[in-house]
Amino acid sequence: MVNCKLCKVPGGDLIWSDDSLRIVQVADQQLPGFVRVIWTEHVSEMTDLSSADQWRLMKVVFGLEQLIRKQMEPTKVNLASLGNQVSHLHWHIVPRFLDDPFFPDSIWSPRHRSTDEQVVAARRSLAAQLPNLIQQQAEGWLMLR
Amino acid sequence: MVNCKLCKVPGGDLIWSDDSLRIVQVADQQLPGFVRVIWTEHVSEMTDLSSADQWRLMKVVFGLEQLIRKQMEPTKVNLASLGNQVSHLHWHIVPRFLDDPFFPDSIWSPRHRSTDEQVVAARRSLAAQLPNLIQQQAEGWLMLR
Repeated sequence: MVNCKLCKVPGGDLIWSDDSLRIVQVADQQLPGFVRVIWTEHVSEMTDLSSADQWRLMKVVFGLEQLIRKQMEPTKVNLASLGNQVSHLHWHIVPRFLDDPFFPDSIWSPRHRSTDEQVVAARRSLAAQLPNLIQQQAEGWLMLR
Repeated sequence: MVNCKLCKVPGGDLIWSDDSLRIVQVADQQLPGFVRVIWTEHVSEMTDLSSADQWRLMKVVFGLEQLIRKQMEPTKVNLASLGNQVSHLHWHIVPRFLDDPFFPDSIWSPRHRSTDEQVVAARRSLAAQLPNLIQQQAEGWLMLR
């Protein structure tokens, strides 16, 4: 698609990819651990995919959720496929914390606070290990039934 | 869970349920067609479910997406499992339109506009048919592989 940003650029720092999808890290200093899964082919909605591809994509989303829970121990994980701004199928996976800038609202809501810099720095250190862990585990997620 | 709202109340107008989940209509006059899928058991995250239950839940979410696309022809469908306010697993399925109050931002973002009342009334009429259609189709979604 000529005018689609996600057909042209990775949409974040590339962590892992295969033919069907890629995992990128979102460079948001206030939300460490925020990653996206972007479907390679230009489609808009989950129901533009076959059932097998839907499940393939969700296995990666849920693999990321599980890894992020273990690595970062967030209060909650947010999963969202919105695409109102860029209508190219992608999922947001966002670890959320009681003291993050938007909690308990969505990360698209108005900001409530700044997180203590030492606290967020510690989370950034944990998040910095995610790319390696994802690279080790992603193929395994796809092999699950 | 003693303090969990979604363990106590339906969380919307009940459309359809089985032992594992329920589908409810959200009474938002500005966002007709907004529905939720709520897991019956009190769990917080998708990765608290077995792989079979994850897929069971997503088949219903995607069934709703497909039905809403056909019935309402939205610009985009938004899917989200957030749970920051109520940490009981549930999915939001929201048909979005270029002229809806929040587009192209999330429905949790600040409002940009009011939608023309005739336009939103026409959408409410289409959305009013969703409960019947869902009741006819939901079991079929669960029987897909």
